[in-house]
Amino acid sequence: MGLHDEIHVVILAGGVGTRLWPISRRSRPKQFQGLLSQHTLLEETYQRVLPLTSPQKTWVVTGAEFVDLVREQLPDVPRDNILGEPEGRSTAPAVALAAARIARADPKAVVLVTPADSYIRDDAAYREYAFLAAEVAATGRIVTLGIVPSRPDTGLGYIQRGERLARPTTWAYRVARFTEKPDAETAARYVADGGYYWNMGHFIFQAKTFMERCEKHLPEVAAGARKLASAPVSTGELIAQVYRTFPSISLDYGIAEKDTDMVVIPTALEWSDLGNWAAVKEIAARHGHIEPGADDHVAVDCSDCLVLPRSGRLVVTVGLEGCVVIDTPDAVLVVQEDASQEVREALEEMEERGKGERL
Amino acid sequence: MGLHDEIHVVILAGGVGTRLWPISRRSRPKQFQGLLSQHTLLEETYQRVLPLTSPQKTWVVTGAEFVDLVREQLPDVPRDNILGEPEGRSTAPAVALAAARIARADPKAVVLVTPADSYIRDDAAYREYAFLAAEVAATGRIVTLGIVPSRPDTGLGYIQRGERLARPTTWAYRVARFTEKPDAETAARYVADGGYYWNMGHFIFQAKTFMERCEKHLPEVAAGARKLASAPVSTGELIAQVYRTFPSISLDYGIAEKDTDMVVIPTALEWSDLGNWAAVKEIAARHGHIEPGADDHVAVDCSDCLVLPRSGRLVVTVGLEGCVVIDTPDAVLVVQEDASQEVREALEEMEERGKGERL
Repeated sequence: MGLHDEIHVVILAGGVGTRLWPISRRSRPKQFQGLLSQHTLLEETYQRVLPLTSPQKTWVVTGAEFVDLVREQLPDVPRDNILGEPEGRSTAPAVALAAARIARADPKAVVLVTPADSYIRDDAAYREYAFLAAEVAATGRIVTLGIVPSRPDTGLGYIQRGERLARPTTWAYRVARFTEKPDAETAARYVADGGYYWNMGHFIFQAKTFMERCEKHLPEVAAGARKLASAPVSTGELIAQVYRTFPSISLDYGIAEKDTDMVVIPTALEWSDLGNWAAVKEIAARHGHIEPGADDHVAVDCSDCLVLPRSGRLVVTVGLEGCVVIDTPDAVLVVQEDASQEVREALEEMEERGKGERL
Repeated sequence: MGLHDEIHVVILAGGVGTRLWPISRRSRPKQFQGLLSQHTLLEETYQRVLPLTSPQKTWVVTGAEFVDLVREQLPDVPRDNILGEPEGRSTAPAVALAAARIARADPKAVVLVTPADSYIRDDAAYREYAFLAAEVAATGRIVTLGIVPSRPDTGLGYIQRGERLARPTTWAYRVARFTEKPDAETAARYVADGGYYWNMGHFIFQAKTFMERCEKHLPEVAAGARKLASAPVSTGELIAQVYRTFPSISLDYGIAEKDTDMVVIPTALEWSDLGNWAAVKEIAARHGHIEPGADDHVAVDCSDCLVLPRSGRLVVTVGLEGCVVIDTPDAVLVVQEDASQEVREALEEMEERGKGERL
């Protein structure tokens, strides 16, 4: 392919975003919400990739119950490109679902897979990296983008690079190893080493390359996805039947870690997985944000806080440090940043206490 | 008087309670609200003193705009006993307003003055102290109750005791000196000394004693109060006219500190002025409380917090320590306990920003 040809983009919009409650809800997870902007994360993702592709080559995989939400937020994307999963099976089946369809029409098509809920500061730089990745992908390898780590984060996965590729793609490396969330000491060693990158979960490959790897490592997923792609009309019943046979497995675990030919391209992107409120606060602190309710917040003697008033009520914070306050019409969350991961436990308790309707 | 004769009680219900916003509001200050109970502080005060008096001998001084609220909360108290001030002038004029009326009908009547917003744990013990005080008051002195200090609090006033009274009232002392909020070192010295008590602002005296002292130290207040007490009908216009001549001065500053014959009775009462949210939290932590919205609160990994959900919304707190969260239908406050005093600054900012309707 030429460097600036259109590629296909698969947006993964199936997450539940539990830890960003109460803005992220079961009925409208975080990717369908505006966190730090008036646009939703899905809309921002679409705007980021659109110059690489076209609405006709954009695919969205999401929960069946969210198909209408996606249509509403991305009205230009054809209805048939929005693939509703009957149940979440993590990312490998979701990507296969789209890749099989793309491969059927054009096996050599280059595909970029992006989560719908990444924060990326510089969209243009991201697209340049995607082009570089597409060049390598055209040689029949799966490429992933890595982030040069800026701190020893223990909540992220890391990619260890192997040898540098030969000319002309010397900005890419073979992947030596994926490692999941390391302990603090290991993370510090990774950062100091210089040969490790954060795994941001963005992948680029030719459709046929992905399907070959899928065939090899997750044959039942490949077979099911091909079956769905070739069915004249993918009825909900057929999808449900096929999905029942799928394991729940991520693209990382199910394919990338087993693929001995993976490539990583280091990037200097400013990125966040917006995985919890502390992560959102960090991004907000660095870049400010359009806060629809800013006028509804009064702070005295507070530092390093994130306050999102989203109910029309007045939020007053006094003497707080490192605290997140999220105010919505039916629930308010107050969480100290270092406890952001524990929001999930609070939701479990809500469910136990019969307050599941607010999840 | 006999030891258990009925006395008159003057309840001072004119405070604004700014620092207990957002439960305390301009239109309904804290004394008209239930903080840790289903009863309001005014109702609790009334129930505490009722065995000492009768509704006919109970007087309430409050802002003119709150007279209807008092009638609603204390329906047994005669309408004419509820004295509405056209504007706040602190406690000396408020007490004089009631004392002049009582003195006119019965100069020897013993009068207990109590703020409407004190927290007192043991009502029966309080009444016993009031009886002891009434006995001394019958000898023509103004008596105040003091609290044996349990910590070097710098936010309270202290009373230094002088010599012990002669038999039979050897549980009482002359007042040597009133001192306002001391610095930390001084407060620590006071507590270690053993001869200092917290000034809780409760006074007992004969009506004529008070009026004599008022005559001596605040003659314009005494004259104005007598004028209002003897007018056949105290029209709002007459009250307003007289109040304009009053200085704004507390009973402590204006009379007690200048009275060389004051008596203090030390008490072991558990008491709080509920002056800010940290004080309310402390009481709540020690004794628990009826929390109307307890079911609307989910906490994970929190300690030493006070959360009052009073809006029907769900409040979720995670990882907080020493934090107060007050949730009301149109405003939510999140304050770290050591910044409780700064709530006032937040309200000033609200006013500046045109949000005064929520004060």
